[in-house]
Amino acid sequence: MPDKDPQPPALEPKALPTTAVPVSTDGASQEQRIDPFDVKGAVVDGKVLAIDYEKLIRDFGTRRISPEILERFEKLTGHKPHIFLRRGMFFSHRDLERILDRYEQGKAFFLYTGRGPSSESMHLGHMIPFMFTKYDVPIIFERPGKLIKLWIRWLQDVFDVPLVIMLTDDEKFLFKPNLSIADVLGFSRNNCKDIIAVGFDVKKTFIFSDLEFMGGAFYENVVKVSRCITGNQSKATFGFTDIDNIGKMHFAAIQASTAFATTFPHIFGTDTKTVKEIPSLIPCAIDQDPYFRLTRDVASRLKYQKPALIHAQFFPALGGPGSKMSASIDSSAIFMNDTMNTIKKKINKYAFSGGQATSEEQRQFGGNPDVDVSFQYLTFFLEDDEDLESIRQSYLKGELLTGELKARCIKELQTFIAAFQERKKAVTDEIVKSYMTPKPLEWSQGKGPKKQAESAVAEVTQKIKDAVVG
Amino acid sequence: MPDKDPQPPALEPKALPTTAVPVSTDGASQEQRIDPFDVKGAVVDGKVLAIDYEKLIRDFGTRRISPEILERFEKLTGHKPHIFLRRGMFFSHRDLERILDRYEQGKAFFLYTGRGPSSESMHLGHMIPFMFTKYDVPIIFERPGKLIKLWIRWLQDVFDVPLVIMLTDDEKFLFKPNLSIADVLGFSRNNCKDIIAVGFDVKKTFIFSDLEFMGGAFYENVVKVSRCITGNQSKATFGFTDIDNIGKMHFAAIQASTAFATTFPHIFGTDTKTVKEIPSLIPCAIDQDPYFRLTRDVASRLKYQKPALIHAQFFPALGGPGSKMSASIDSSAIFMNDTMNTIKKKINKYAFSGGQATSEEQRQFGGNPDVDVSFQYLTFFLEDDEDLESIRQSYLKGELLTGELKARCIKELQTFIAAFQERKKAVTDEIVKSYMTPKPLEWSQGKGPKKQAESAVAEVTQKIKDAVVG
Repeated sequence: MPDKDPQPPALEPKALPTTAVPVSTDGASQEQRIDPFDVKGAVVDGKVLAIDYEKLIRDFGTRRISPEILERFEKLTGHKPHIFLRRGMFFSHRDLERILDRYEQGKAFFLYTGRGPSSESMHLGHMIPFMFTKYDVPIIFERPGKLIKLWIRWLQDVFDVPLVIMLTDDEKFLFKPNLSIADVLGFSRNNCKDIIAVGFDVKKTFIFSDLEFMGGAFYENVVKVSRCITGNQSKATFGFTDIDNIGKMHFAAIQASTAFATTFPHIFGTDTKTVKEIPSLIPCAIDQDPYFRLTRDVASRLKYQKPALIHAQFFPALGGPGSKMSASIDSSAIFMNDTMNTIKKKINKYAFSGGQATSEEQRQFGGNPDVDVSFQYLTFFLEDDEDLESIRQSYLKGELLTGELKARCIKELQTFIAAFQERKKAVTDEIVKSYMTPKPLEWSQGKGPKKQAESAVAEVTQKIKDAVVG
Repeated sequence: MPDKDPQPPALEPKALPTTAVPVSTDGASQEQRIDPFDVKGAVVDGKVLAIDYEKLIRDFGTRRISPEILERFEKLTGHKPHIFLRRGMFFSHRDLERILDRYEQGKAFFLYTGRGPSSESMHLGHMIPFMFTKYDVPIIFERPGKLIKLWIRWLQDVFDVPLVIMLTDDEKFLFKPNLSIADVLGFSRNNCKDIIAVGFDVKKTFIFSDLEFMGGAFYENVVKVSRCITGNQSKATFGFTDIDNIGKMHFAAIQASTAFATTFPHIFGTDTKTVKEIPSLIPCAIDQDPYFRLTRDVASRLKYQKPALIHAQFFPALGGPGSKMSASIDSSAIFMNDTMNTIKKKINKYAFSGGQATSEEQRQFGGNPDVDVSFQYLTFFLEDDEDLESIRQSYLKGELLTGELKARCIKELQTFIAAFQERKKAVTDEIVKSYMTPKPLEWSQGKGPKKQAESAVAEVTQKIKDAVVG
């Protein structure tokens, strides 16, 4: 048994580009625009730039996830920060410290994430908040004479808190004039299977369709919230105009209400006085922030706890920075129901390359991993920081050819998606029902003298020992 | 047994004033304004005029309830039109002919009315749509040597259709910043008791609170409707601006959804194809018409049947035309929980009189029944047309003094309200629950070969015989 620490070396959170990179050319100059309905890089002299995340932090008034906060996270929970945190995919937050304070003090909170069910199958980008919220990620790395496998458990298990997942089928219906209620309910059901296949604990998870769950305490919060938001605010926040329908203008109240524990009496009970003190922590893509800025304003007025947020960057489209990943454009993304062969074809054919035009040039000049989509995907799915860094260096130096990099990406994606598809096959309608039926949940955080951090440390230590021995 | 028809003589629907009457003086000139949130007579040269109902018919594009339609109503149903119809309190309609066609053809429809529960007790004005929808009204009239009592049954029984009654507690919450959810839910429950005390058949009636009933098929219709209404339409229809909250702007979708049978699968079933063909008939005050104009537009787009409407004039405030009846101003109205003594005091002290200053002048010049509130109230509560006409003539001629007219009004109101309070005492929480729980209803219209008209005629004939004999 080796005596040295088998954990992978930590990386500092990746520095965000402060100057965006020009990536394509169309249209005149304009500012970048990021809201729930529009994600567009700035255009300068006809060139579309990649999203400037530093600018977003400044414009939205959020805070950078700092090395200090990650250190505190690790110390409190006994868990190494997820690669999405270490590598800066989740890069910004609001009030994450307050959640860590509560964790430390043994006070209750819950996780809230969601999905707008817009098509029959989810794609890789849709997986990010769910993988971050809960996915038993196997870390496999080699040490001299050993293959070490470490399972990292994520937010739901790290914190041991309830998780609510909202399927905003009502929103999709309101924003897409061609969809029927049956369409969006069907999407909800199918997407729910995808989400379950990520691996959530049914005892701690409530997945719901807005259309099905609306009513009771949820609706009471919706009217409470909607009384606090003016037409002006909804328009200014989301860019609506008076030709938009009233359902769109009103939808913010629905997305906001889910951030409040009082919406879920079947989970938290009906003692409003204590339940309204339970905040949510919301992992989401940064484009959802406008909803929750509004929610945080409203929370103060309703004397509810403000939700805390962790913001993700956007998952790269196959076409590379500046191109758009769309559920309706098959070649823009890898879908979770793509066959192994399709994955291979899509990466080979569509994945934007940072490499040179020929092998000779690649050997001579090297490739650019910062814009290479295959490399970017590896940063999301390859757990071992050393392995990833060695690929990066080889690619930079031209030792690794584009075809080889793509092959590695294909292998990792195929492994991930094949395992996912295997799990999804096992998700029956009965299982869907068990997640979507309002029921009491089981968790420990905030329920008594706090021992989670200690037991989590003990648990992860044991796992490491098992892995190293096994 | 007399061989002549014991029914009271028919009156033509009362002619509506084509020129409004100046009644008080305050403010500058302006048009009359009638919408769900504002009921104001025109102001001309500083004088507030009574509501010009003929102008409303023109402005809203509705139709006058004609003698022909009343004749057809009586012929089809075998029931003499209610005094509210004969005397023109329900004066305007949309598509009432279509409902009569359906009645004749044995096709299904339903009644929809509602109440915004804004205070602990309802007043007389609130009773009008409910009395019209269902109230067993005793008509007592004298014939030589006989006192004849005839019970007239109203819309619910005449048509034998389901009735849904919506308590818009969500609306009240959205429009009144000082109310809590508990407040408006309390109002709903208490107002529900008042409504039940009017005398609805529990087997044919579903009373619901929006806050409690929201969800499922109802919510599906809400999002369907809200997708069809733009911010522009909501603002233009109700006079909202961008400083109004998004709940107000969105509320039209909720009030509209109740007009569609698909909102009530527990009543009409889930066979959408047939259920969406079932229209509603909505008895309401004319100020609610803007909601339903919008609803009728939306219905076409959703391929639902347009709701039909019967519009009531406003019930006069104690202070007379130009004054406002308000649930929060005790002296403006007779409340259903006023004591017999309070009723007497209020009529004597606050009821606007059309009489002269002294008995002598009254004898000499006569009174004006058209502006006299006591006389107006008698037109709502005195069933016998001959009796009413004789009071009117005596008052006009000065034979009847103001005090005598008030005494008669007090007597009728006390009788009506005492009987109401007696019935309300019997309404337990258990009974409230039986009306407010979604359950299948029982009715005959539209359910098979149509014999209602014939049996209704037979029934009413029998009642007349019983009354005359008894």
